[in-house]
This record gives sequence, structure tokens and C-alpha cells, in this order.
Amino acid sequence: MRKYTFFLLLCFYLEALGQDTLWVNANTLEIEGKGFSNTENDYDRLPATAKGLVRDPVWELGQHSAGILVRFYTNALQFYIRWELTSTMLAMPHMPATGVSGVDVYVLNNKKEYLFLGTGIPKNVKNLAVFNTNTQQNHLSSYLLYLPLYNGTKLLEIGVPMGYVIQKDTIFHAVVHKPILFYGTSILQGACASRAGMAYPSILGRKLGVHIINLGFSGNAKLEPEMQELISEVEAAVYVIDCHHNTTKDETQTRTEPAIRKIRAKRPYAPIVLIEGSNPKRDFPTEEGLITQEIVKKLKKEGFKNLYYIKGNGLLGQDTEATVDLVHHSDLGMQRQAEFLYPIFKKILRKIKQ
Amino acid sequence: MRKYTFFLLLCFYLEALGQDTLWVNANTLEIEGKGFSNTENDYDRLPATAKGLVRDPVWELGQHSAGILVRFYTNALQFYIRWELTSTMLAMPHMPATGVSGVDVYVLNNKKEYLFLGTGIPKNVKNLAVFNTNTQQNHLSSYLLYLPLYNGTKLLEIGVPMGYVIQKDTIFHAVVHKPILFYGTSILQGACASRAGMAYPSILGRKLGVHIINLGFSGNAKLEPEMQELISEVEAAVYVIDCHHNTTKDETQTRTEPAIRKIRAKRPYAPIVLIEGSNPKRDFPTEEGLITQEIVKKLKKEGFKNLYYIKGNGLLGQDTEATVDLVHHSDLGMQRQAEFLYPIFKKILRKIKQ
Repeated sequence: MRKYTFFLLLCFYLEALGQDTLWVNANTLEIEGKGFSNTENDYDRLPATAKGLVRDPVWELGQHSAGILVRFYTNALQFYIRWELTSTMLAMPHMPATGVSGVDVYVLNNKKEYLFLGTGIPKNVKNLAVFNTNTQQNHLSSYLLYLPLYNGTKLLEIGVPMGYVIQKDTIFHAVVHKPILFYGTSILQGACASRAGMAYPSILGRKLGVHIINLGFSGNAKLEPEMQELISEVEAAVYVIDCHHNTTKDETQTRTEPAIRKIRAKRPYAPIVLIEGSNPKRDFPTEEGLITQEIVKKLKKEGFKNLYYIKGNGLLGQDTEATVDLVHHSDLGMQRQAEFLYPIFKKILRKIKQ
Repeated sequence: MRKYTFFLLLCFYLEALGQDTLWVNANTLEIEGKGFSNTENDYDRLPATAKGLVRDPVWELGQHSAGILVRFYTNALQFYIRWELTSTMLAMPHMPATGVSGVDVYVLNNKKEYLFLGTGIPKNVKNLAVFNTNTQQNHLSSYLLYLPLYNGTKLLEIGVPMGYVIQKDTIFHAVVHKPILFYGTSILQGACASRAGMAYPSILGRKLGVHIINLGFSGNAKLEPEMQELISEVEAAVYVIDCHHNTTKDETQTRTEPAIRKIRAKRPYAPIVLIEGSNPKRDFPTEEGLITQEIVKKLKKEGFKNLYYIKGNGLLGQDTEATVDLVHHSDLGMQRQAEFLYPIFKKILRKIKQ
């Protein structure tokens, strides 16, 4: 009986949504976090030209919407998100559906803090979520809507009741105009955050007040020549390379220097930040870390400026609690990594602005 | 082809396990975290006598193995965990299978720290996980094995290669002999930790060096008279009540005082700790918190000793990042709550020991 009533109510609700709701396709708003505009689908992370050029797994992972977000304004007291996924694999055994396939909403308060407003919980390929804003009547508030981390987003629509406004966020000004580009592993892509906004680059984006681009490719951050090329094509304020969990010692040795040189050739002044992989077992330095450190030293001697190497020791804190499986970060690991990197990036950004 | 090779290897591996492995049923080792010995199944949290006495959902949730653990010793370099679950619902949309249905292993190092060793990832009702210990040859190490938080554990076996020893951990001595009993909500039961060891009472147990009992009943911590009775039956060092997310204002008003009186009648000196619910939106005090605070004041005036009230303000930190859905804690929330409570409980325990 209860179920039947619920079903009726839901039908009524959806009917009402259909009639009295203004649906806006998010691709008409401000989409952020894309390094490339010429993509096959709206929420791809790699350009269409990369197909066949990069390895197949990289291409497929590039269709995950990690780090992509919509920044919008509305005065609605309640709004709705409809999103359609590309894969039926909604969750992983060590990462919940909310992180793999969910959407995540934040609201900016008058202290310029981003407050977590709620998560759209995915239950199917097509999903609907309702968000209550707690906004005062007729007050335009600024929202961040993060897309799924380990699934593709085929369609994304935001609905507001008729009579309310929804528009691009034109007021937000990032601390630096260009985004910070992050290239790296599954952890960077967001494994195993509990929700879309908790991948560590996204946390940093909010804390620093900057745009970010997430080029995390689960298990496939191999820093290949074609990826070096793609990364250097993006006009970024800072380039971050965090791929030690995926590159072998040999790959680290042979590919790190060409990657730095390629970026530097195109972006003479942009800071390049190399991060030693995290290590939940607390054995530092890592072999890949030592190799990278040597390369950075050598290039600095050659006269390379704005080149940073960050040791992994502090990334996960001093206990062993911050991962799900001794590799992938829980939200605890994501937050710790972001908090550890925050002052370092703050300093780097301050230099850029001067 | 690859799949076929994998299948053959798996068969060979399982065959080898069967022949050369000593399997020990965990119920013959030290099972910790149970308030009642007369249970229907090995890893139930409520006594058989509670069936029909408590509401059905409470009884069913009592069959989840939250907070139950096995403390054992082995000198094996590798060991195996076989566990069988009671439900095929391996995950929730906002909580991964590793937390809902997985097992979690910690090892004690020579600095008396518990280090996270790994998680057994559940993929079916019957599961097998392999753990590499990094132990030196013939060194007996002490392990903690946490059971699933939101599923029942029907059978649990630990396997070591023939010739190795597995036994009860007789060396661990808790700071206080009796356990700390936690009664409360879904959060307390472990929602939405990424793995079994990350429910906040379990983190506290490791940090404080004590035994804990997790009587968290998702959505059903109503503090009913029958639950008050059951709680007070358990011989605990400290009684913690953290049920504000589930009790209405009226229930908080009418049930808190009888609960305290009932425990106090049976345990004249045991500290009783009441925790204001967490609130990701940072609106404090909560209405239920104010009610509880008044009750505590009143009883203290009456002469009640060792009665503590903990305000919720600091439980989740000062941002809004620590939950999955504005209610349930991610590992970040669990760790923050445990870190916030740690010094308070440390002080309380110090008083007991004096």
C-alpha cells in the first residue's frame, strides 16, 4: 500500500516537474574543467582528435567526466538535476555509486566559502535529483555542479520552477584566469572519493578559488609522448604531474624530462609541479620520486625556472587510515592531500599574480 | 584467452589453498565487540532473547556485524580470509561494498600503532581475500579483523599455510578491561565508511587501545525502553548514547532520562556520555541537543556523577565536506569525529583507572 502511494506521488511529482519546470541543458551554461573544446561529446576530457592517437583505455577514460563542472546562478528555492550516464556500471566495489556516477552540488555563501549542498544519488543510467537551496526569496546564488568521476555524462539538465532564473555564473572570478591542469592517476581522477566534488584537485579548486582541469586516467597515467603533447596544448596557469603510481621506474626516467621540456617550450613561465606519489605504507622516498627529483635538480641547474618537486611524505598524513585499499584515497585521503598541497599552491599562485 | 588463463590460475590457486591451508573458524578465536554471548548466530549484536522484544528492523540490524572483530596472532607471511554474508545487498548507493560487506585488517607494529593492512573486497555472498603481512619469518604478529558494517556475517574463516600458527591474541591488554559501549544511529553503525574499520567507534577503539561494542541501528536508534534495558545489561566501562539523528524531540525528552537512570541503577560508577548529533550544516545547538543538555544538568543537580554531555559543534570540522549526503559520514567525517572525541574519552578513561 505504502509503495503504491509512493508510486502515485512520484508520478504526480514528475508530471508536475514536466509542466512547470524550465529545463536548461547544462551545455548552454558555463562548463568548466575541460582542457579541450573540440570534443566528441559535451563532457569528454580529451579532444576528438585524440581518438586513435592515445591508447584505447586512455580514450575511454577520457570520456569520464571527472573534474568537469557547471557553474551557474539561480534564484530558485529548489532545483532539479537530470543526468544520463554512458555506462551502467554505476559503482565499483571500493567506490560508491555517488562517487562513480553521482553529481555533487556546492553553494557559495557570503563569506566566499563553498558549502556542500547535496549529492544526486544515481540509481539508473537516467537519474533525477532534487536540491533544496535554503536561499532567501529572489536571491541569486552561485552553485557548482560536479559531474561523475568514473562514468561518462551523456546529458545534463538543470530544472527550475517556472518563473525562476537560471543563468551562467558571470560573477565568479578565479584567483588566476587560466586553470590549473592536473595530469595523473586513478587517485587524481577521483578514486575512491565518496562523491564527485571530493577528488583532490576539485577540493583544491574550491579552496584556492581557481578553475581546475582533471586529466586523471585510472591506471593509465603513463606520460606517453602523445599525452605530453596534449597536456602542453592546454593553456594552463600551472601544470601538475602526479603519475608515479602508474609510470614504471623506466617510464619515469625516460618520459619526465621530455614532458617538462615540451610544456616549457610552449609555456615559458608557467609553473610545473611534480608530485611524488602517495604511499600509505609511509616508505619514502619512493624510487620514482628519487628519479623525478634528480631530473628536476638537473633541469634547474640548466636554468629551468618555476619547476617544483613535492615530496609525498605528508600527502596522506602520518597514520595509515586514508586509503580504501592501500592505494586509492577515501575522502579522508583526498582531503588530507588537498590540505597538504593547499599552502604550496597558494604560494605558487601568489608568484604568478605578482 | 586471458580470461581463460586467469580462470585456470584461480582454480589452481584455490586447489592449493584447499590442500595446504589450515583453516580456522574465527568463532574459535577471540571475538570482540559483542555485548551479548547468547546470540542466535556467531556475529549477531543482539541476544536471541531480543527477538520479538525489539522492533523487527532493530532485530534485523542487530544481525549486521558492525564493530565485531577478531583479534588474532599468526606468524604466517600470508593469510587468507573466507567470509560468507547473509545478504546479497553488497553495497548501498552512497556506501561502497568494501564498507557494507567487506572485511578489514590491521596489524600492530612495535610502536603499538595499528597499521591498516588491507581490505577484503566483497564481490559475492561468499568471498576470499589474500593478505600479505610483511612480517619477518617466524615473527608472531597481532592482527585485527573487522567484520562487515551493513551486512551479516554467516561464516568467517582465517587460513594460514600449513606449518604456520594461528591463535587467539592473548597479549593485547586494553587500557580498561571492560569495553566502551556505543549506542546510536546509522553513522555510529558505520554509514558511510569506505571500509569496516572506519566506523568512528572502531577508530576510537584503535586510538584509545580499548575494546568497543557498536550498537548502532541505522535509522532506528529510538532509545526505546527495551533498548535501554538491553544496553544496561551489558557490563561496559563507559556508556555512550549518540542517537539524536533518530530520536524525535519528543523521544529525546521522554526517553533520555529513563535511559540514564536505568544504566546508573545497574552501573553506579560507569561514565555515561551523551553526544549531540553531528550537523553538517553547522547549525548548533540542535533542538535535541538542548533537550539532552537540560536533562544532564538536572540529573547532575540531583547528584548524578560521571555524566558527560558533548556538544556536536566540533564533530565534523569547520567546513561542510565530511558527509556523503549531508547526513552520513564519509571516512573524513568518521576520522574527524573520532579525533574530536579522542581527548575527551582519554580523560574519561584516565579517571576510571585512578
